[in-house]
Amino acid sequence: MLNVHLVPHTHDDVGWLKTVDQYFYGDRNDIQHAGVQYILDSVVDQLLKNPDRRFIYVETAFFYRWWRQQSSSMQQTVKQLVNEGRLEFVNGGWCMSDEATTHYSAVIDQMTMGLRFLNETFGPCGRPRVAWHIDPFGHAREHASMFAQMGYDGFFFGRLDYQDRARRMMYREQELLWRASDSLTPPMADLFTGILPNGYNPPEGFCWDQSCDDAPIRDDPDLEDYNVDDVVKRFLAIAEGQTNHIIMTMGSDFQYENANLWYKNLDKLIHYVNAQQANGIKVNVLYSTPSCYLQELHRTNLTWALKNDDFFPYADDAHDFWTGYFTSRPALKRYERISNSNLQVMCNQLEVLGGPVSRRGPFGVGDSKTMKEAMAVAQHHDAVSGTEKQHVANDYARRLANGWQHCQVLVSNSLAGLSGSTAERIYCDNLNISVCPLTESSKKFSVNVYNPLARPVTWPVRLPVNGTAYVVSDANGKSVVPVSPATREVRRSRGFAVNELVFQVQAPPLGYTTYSVSLLQNGPPPASTQHHTPTAIKNKVLNHSVITYEHFLQVTFDPDTGLLSSLSNLETKQTIKLTQNFYWYNASDGNNVESIQPSGAYIFRPNSSTPFVISKTAKTESIQTPAVQEVRQWFSPWVSQVVRLYADSRALELEWTVGPVPIDDDLGKEVITRLDTSIQTAQYFYTDSNGREVLQRKTDFRPTWNLKQSEPIAGNYYPINSRAFIKDDDDQLTVVTDRSQGGGSINNGSLEIMLHRRLLYDDVRGVAEPLNETSGIFPKGLVVRGRLLLSLDRPASAADAHRPLAQEVVLQPLLTFTGGDLHPNTRLEFSGLQAALPPAVHLLTLSQWDKDSVLLRLEHQFQSWESKVNSQPVTVNLQVRHSHTSYTSHLHLSVPSLQHIRT
Amino acid sequence: MLNVHLVPHTHDDVGWLKTVDQYFYGDRNDIQHAGVQYILDSVVDQLLKNPDRRFIYVETAFFYRWWRQQSSSMQQTVKQLVNEGRLEFVNGGWCMSDEATTHYSAVIDQMTMGLRFLNETFGPCGRPRVAWHIDPFGHAREHASMFAQMGYDGFFFGRLDYQDRARRMMYREQELLWRASDSLTPPMADLFTGILPNGYNPPEGFCWDQSCDDAPIRDDPDLEDYNVDDVVKRFLAIAEGQTNHIIMTMGSDFQYENANLWYKNLDKLIHYVNAQQANGIKVNVLYSTPSCYLQELHRTNLTWALKNDDFFPYADDAHDFWTGYFTSRPALKRYERISNSNLQVMCNQLEVLGGPVSRRGPFGVGDSKTMKEAMAVAQHHDAVSGTEKQHVANDYARRLANGWQHCQVLVSNSLAGLSGSTAERIYCDNLNISVCPLTESSKKFSVNVYNPLARPVTWPVRLPVNGTAYVVSDANGKSVVPVSPATREVRRSRGFAVNELVFQVQAPPLGYTTYSVSLLQNGPPPASTQHHTPTAIKNKVLNHSVITYEHFLQVTFDPDTGLLSSLSNLETKQTIKLTQNFYWYNASDGNNVESIQPSGAYIFRPNSSTPFVISKTAKTESIQTPAVQEVRQWFSPWVSQVVRLYADSRALELEWTVGPVPIDDDLGKEVITRLDTSIQTAQYFYTDSNGREVLQRKTDFRPTWNLKQSEPIAGNYYPINSRAFIKDDDDQLTVVTDRSQGGGSINNGSLEIMLHRRLLYDDVRGVAEPLNETSGIFPKGLVVRGRLLLSLDRPASAADAHRPLAQEVVLQPLLTFTGGDLHPNTRLEFSGLQAALPPAVHLLTLSQWDKDSVLLRLEHQFQSWESKVNSQPVTVNLQVRHSHTSYTSHLHLSVPSLQHIRT
Repeated sequence: MLNVHLVPHTHDDVGWLKTVDQYFYGDRNDIQHAGVQYILDSVVDQLLKNPDRRFIYVETAFFYRWWRQQSSSMQQTVKQLVNEGRLEFVNGGWCMSDEATTHYSAVIDQMTMGLRFLNETFGPCGRPRVAWHIDPFGHAREHASMFAQMGYDGFFFGRLDYQDRARRMMYREQELLWRASDSLTPPMADLFTGILPNGYNPPEGFCWDQSCDDAPIRDDPDLEDYNVDDVVKRFLAIAEGQTNHIIMTMGSDFQYENANLWYKNLDKLIHYVNAQQANGIKVNVLYSTPSCYLQELHRTNLTWALKNDDFFPYADDAHDFWTGYFTSRPALKRYERISNSNLQVMCNQLEVLGGPVSRRGPFGVGDSKTMKEAMAVAQHHDAVSGTEKQHVANDYARRLANGWQHCQVLVSNSLAGLSGSTAERIYCDNLNISVCPLTESSKKFSVNVYNPLARPVTWPVRLPVNGTAYVVSDANGKSVVPVSPATREVRRSRGFAVNELVFQVQAPPLGYTTYSVSLLQNGPPPASTQHHTPTAIKNKVLNHSVITYEHFLQVTFDPDTGLLSSLSNLETKQTIKLTQNFYWYNASDGNNVESIQPSGAYIFRPNSSTPFVISKTAKTESIQTPAVQEVRQWFSPWVSQVVRLYADSRALELEWTVGPVPIDDDLGKEVITRLDTSIQTAQYFYTDSNGREVLQRKTDFRPTWNLKQSEPIAGNYYPINSRAFIKDDDDQLTVVTDRSQGGGSINNGSLEIMLHRRLLYDDVRGVAEPLNETSGIFPKGLVVRGRLLLSLDRPASAADAHRPLAQEVVLQPLLTFTGGDLHPNTRLEFSGLQAALPPAVHLLTLSQWDKDSVLLRLEHQFQSWESKVNSQPVTVNLQVRHSHTSYTSHLHLSVPSLQHIRT
Repeated sequence: MLNVHLVPHTHDDVGWLKTVDQYFYGDRNDIQHAGVQYILDSVVDQLLKNPDRRFIYVETAFFYRWWRQQSSSMQQTVKQLVNEGRLEFVNGGWCMSDEATTHYSAVIDQMTMGLRFLNETFGPCGRPRVAWHIDPFGHAREHASMFAQMGYDGFFFGRLDYQDRARRMMYREQELLWRASDSLTPPMADLFTGILPNGYNPPEGFCWDQSCDDAPIRDDPDLEDYNVDDVVKRFLAIAEGQTNHIIMTMGSDFQYENANLWYKNLDKLIHYVNAQQANGIKVNVLYSTPSCYLQELHRTNLTWALKNDDFFPYADDAHDFWTGYFTSRPALKRYERISNSNLQVMCNQLEVLGGPVSRRGPFGVGDSKTMKEAMAVAQHHDAVSGTEKQHVANDYARRLANGWQHCQVLVSNSLAGLSGSTAERIYCDNLNISVCPLTESSKKFSVNVYNPLARPVTWPVRLPVNGTAYVVSDANGKSVVPVSPATREVRRSRGFAVNELVFQVQAPPLGYTTYSVSLLQNGPPPASTQHHTPTAIKNKVLNHSVITYEHFLQVTFDPDTGLLSSLSNLETKQTIKLTQNFYWYNASDGNNVESIQPSGAYIFRPNSSTPFVISKTAKTESIQTPAVQEVRQWFSPWVSQVVRLYADSRALELEWTVGPVPIDDDLGKEVITRLDTSIQTAQYFYTDSNGREVLQRKTDFRPTWNLKQSEPIAGNYYPINSRAFIKDDDDQLTVVTDRSQGGGSINNGSLEIMLHRRLLYDDVRGVAEPLNETSGIFPKGLVVRGRLLLSLDRPASAADAHRPLAQEVVLQPLLTFTGGDLHPNTRLEFSGLQAALPPAVHLLTLSQWDKDSVLLRLEHQFQSWESKVNSQPVTVNLQVRHSHTSYTSHLHLSVPSLQHIRT
């Protein structure tokens, strides 16, 4: 007997064309008809009508909203349905996260939020047994690894490369075993994975939702158009040729708002098809769930093909590579990433360290919940992915900003408790554009630098000021030498500051220190800049054509072009040729003989494989201070860069500024920076998966099928969440990014990263808007700024540098300011750790779990192969002293593992 | 306190854009999203959730379909809801009938079907207390009269002339007392009538159906966009300035498919608005029904303005007169009318007269139910009105045809029982186009002529034949003299017959007689025709320029033009000048400075007030036989007419044939015939209301308001259901029609009737199709044929002629055929009455009610003022002998009253 598992389900985007709350309420149905409150109302009603009926629900962000509004008797009814397996949660995270543009730490958090709610509300019966990522546009290995480690029995998804799907259909490999880590010992990261037969939609002709137009089952012989025989025949034709078990997803986007339509017809379908068993038809149709299907499948004792790589990039046709969203909305992507840092630092860590006073203290009531929810929602596959409508992107940002506000109250309270000072804390959220009213106008202020990492970190602080000389003292009263402001580069900045004060700070592990800053009247003038125009200075060796500090790095520039020309690691005595420039691909407008696919929020499709160079030369100026050397490059009015080398840094910082991307020529543009090096890459390059393990990539190649490459650029793009590198036997150049971006290595020795996109056409995947970001403060188009950190190392030890470097970008120190003098009793330094953790161990999470307990996540962060030193297992002795409990434990961490500890 | 009565309702068209069964199932949602099965499912579910909630349901055609599919426990639940007044039926007919194009007898039947079902299913609690015609496009006085006589407490509707509405809003006359008969003694036909404030829609911004996009009430302060205050404020603004009681229709077309959306938000609305009472707001919102609202209104002891005329024509703007649908789909309108005749005659009367054997007899199983349902559905205001999509019009016709089939079995059984002969009965349904295979090919056959009227009727029979001489004998074996076939006019006919046999038959009241027809070999040749071409025969008096028989009528033709020139009644010695010709209005295509409104299925809007004449002259031919004299006129290839005078007829028959209306010139055409007479009409003319009482009309005038006429033609059109007349002190010319049509009297002495319409544009009232009828057998456009019967009388006695004349058109004799010789024992004559009824009394209905009882409706059919003789009250002695019962009664009938008797 062939068992056909019908899985009634709804796919409820946690924001996309409408905001998450609009979706919940069913507001703005003029944009898209969708109201999740009604879906849950309706499904519960309909489940009660027939005990055979099943439903799965996925997005806890919505379920949680709904649940809070229900009467206790309705809650009791729902518990009963859950206990009886009629309503089953699958996946169960706060949202169905994006896989290409999320960072694993935020994904773990959002999954935790959802699963925790389900566990606390429904107990073991509410626990999702399968992961369910039916819509994300490609699938990351790290996601599968996380799901396996979270204990899911299996994983289902809907989208994969069309060539991959065709091959798997031919060879019946639509079910497979995904070995999702090359470091963890199998089966620790092994996950059964099923590819759904029709995306996540019902078979053609069998969609009975109110949003569909398929004919209902008309089974009253007294009325016109009796069609039972036709329906049964069509259904059996679909099932034909299958054996044992098949799954059919009976639902789609925001379906089941009127669940009666679906269930009434499914009841009839089951009845009339199974009635054919009396005629010898060997088909049995049943209401089911993915976990039930999986259980039945496991009973058949089949074996599955093994999969070691991932499912990127995703293409649904020859010229339709979903690799644009790796970069779409770069400002939102950065805001999400820094919000994660803020959540971990401001909310989570400081809430724990500050104790109950953090939540209710001298500065009022603060909470971490707002930020946690905002971050959880932002992980959705149409949120940080950049594939939502503009007004929805604004809503995600607004939620995050609101989260910041709530966290800042908490931080003020916490730091007041820890420092003993209730002086007002000032937050300068706009330091990235060099704006901070306090530092610009004060003669005296102090800076609290909080370090969220479990090891001491040195960090450059850059403050906009208007004085020409300042004294900066550390917590011991010792002057930081030397600090003199440099002339601020105003063309790229906002605000009214004239100068910029730069100095290095160092804060203790999981703790803070305090610097005080005082204006020196009549001090020396700020360091001045030297201007150079490449054409005017051709063939002349310039002072600034080499920038270096004594120990670590040396960078050279081509005096003819003003471009980078080489990078050297002075410690390892490596040098590579390195040219870097900016280019743009002309986005396809869809007017093309091969395909009418335009570039859009999802899809990257350049009109030509050769990008246009923005300028072959850069105008430059340079500035040197004891703390930092900068070469400032101008490529065009809308592309500039600062190449920056801090005195004690092992990484070269490229701070790029791109925008407003001009569109007066009616051409959409996808802006990249490309690093061309002397490294012999032989088509290989490496990108990370969700900020954690690194995968090898090869141009024009897929590990599991014989690729027919039809898009030489877009088809070679992969997500870069935190880093990418190219290497040969001698040299590895690693680029650490400050947000998720797309990139690839098209030519030997080359690595390109897409920075910004401005497009004039929708790419026909539903969002129905061109990705053309303008807003009140950027009416001519969004300007985006970001940083790439370059590290040149020997391949065998490169991870020892890029792991901590990336960590510092993901979890940034928190700066808070206080005007005037601090009270003399103020505690200027604090650390939450007795000692720094070993380099291999990352303190991923420290957050308040509930009133009496704390969640601590420690992580071994090196892959098994990447470091002789740091890939070794480590043991950590934990001794926790908390207001209520004392806890001691020996923790053994292997590569790259995670331990969750609740104390 | 102002009470705001919220009336949750759905308006479910019994066919319009989709067929009635497609609407029921929710099939073809690609055309329109609508599924009544789900509406009823959902409403019942939601009513159960809150005892305050109310719902009204209107169309029993749908409710009946749904009810049959429910389990007995669901039926019990629904009964409970009905008993508690939570579900209330209003109107309750099978459909919400059209008011402009229906005949009262079919309306009474469809109302009976619906109300009977409700009564038998729910008892007194299921009885609708109010009539509810929220959508029909204008309102007939006869409908109000019927509703009053059916015992409704009041009547609500939504559509009236925009000028009328404006005036009534200004003077607060949106509620009124409609005195719906000028013959019945008040308050017999008095009906409270309420005009709904917003058509039948909810106030703007308060539509919470799934089909609407209004913002839901967002009352969770933790989510975005909390809007309770705004909603309450907007609601109070609408209620402001009203006193006591107002009604709000919370629903619209096919709404409540997901009733949760409506009720969840209405619950909140009621809660939050009434919560304002604590702040002194004097508004109370409640779930209500129209009957509850009416009851409360009656308690206020207000008095209402009186209304004596009707609500035709309906205009929703200055150039938007809904007077096109009076004529739209003339073939469907005729098919519906003749189907009504067939239903009454074939199904109802013969089922009763034949007894149980009719339903199950020698010819199998027959039933009247199929035809009754088909007719009931056809009364819908988008059915016989002609305002449905083409495929839906086809469905109505198919249903009627199917009804005919079922009735024919019943007739065969019934006549077999009554006559004692089981010889096969042949039905010639296509005699109107002169096709009948039996008569065309048989040498001998008999014709059974059944007369459905309660008095003997003489009738001409016209049969297509191929012989040249026949002997026709009556039931007594007496030859009918003289009968010789005439040459058939083949250009206007289908089929293969060469000649046409015409003879007069007379059948007994409510009974049949039998004629036998035998081919005479070598008889005389058929009467031949004389051809005349006006241009060729100018100034020459022709033989056929006068047609007359000895006693009754004389008609003259203008020999120059071939057109009618005068009509004389020889008995009364009246003569009028009478010219008749055919014209077309150029339908507006919407490309117009005054308004972009085009002519369409609903709306008549000629581009100019001057119609184009089709031809100033007619080619003619004439034929004379003892039974009939004909003048055949050709005006163009697509317009022709036969002017026909039967030997013993007091009416002149104009059999027009129009079509295919040419559209090669890209001009939509609305074809009229116009009678121009010497009668001094002084702007007055008269049209009937649903085939019953006659109302006076006056050009460019409305009785209750100061009309600003903006459409001199369309704004003067009125529905003609069975007759129209013009008169002066001496002469009344009455035109009896064979179907509903639109018409008016634009000029003095003139009466025009629209016959056919072919349009190229949709008129933007929802049907979204141009009214451009083509089909398989009419690929070049529909050809329509019909008859106008002209009667010239003294005004004081005109009704004595037109009442019985119209009756004969509405209820036609039934002809059935038997080939060969009849068995000698065959009973050739039968009458169901012992004596004919008096002329004032019409036997409206005789039909089987259930196994043991019969429904008899007798009607006084004269208005109080229209006949010295026949407008008097009459008494009828009833003595019924039936197989089971014997019943005697004295029935007193006043003008124009109706008695329903169940025996």
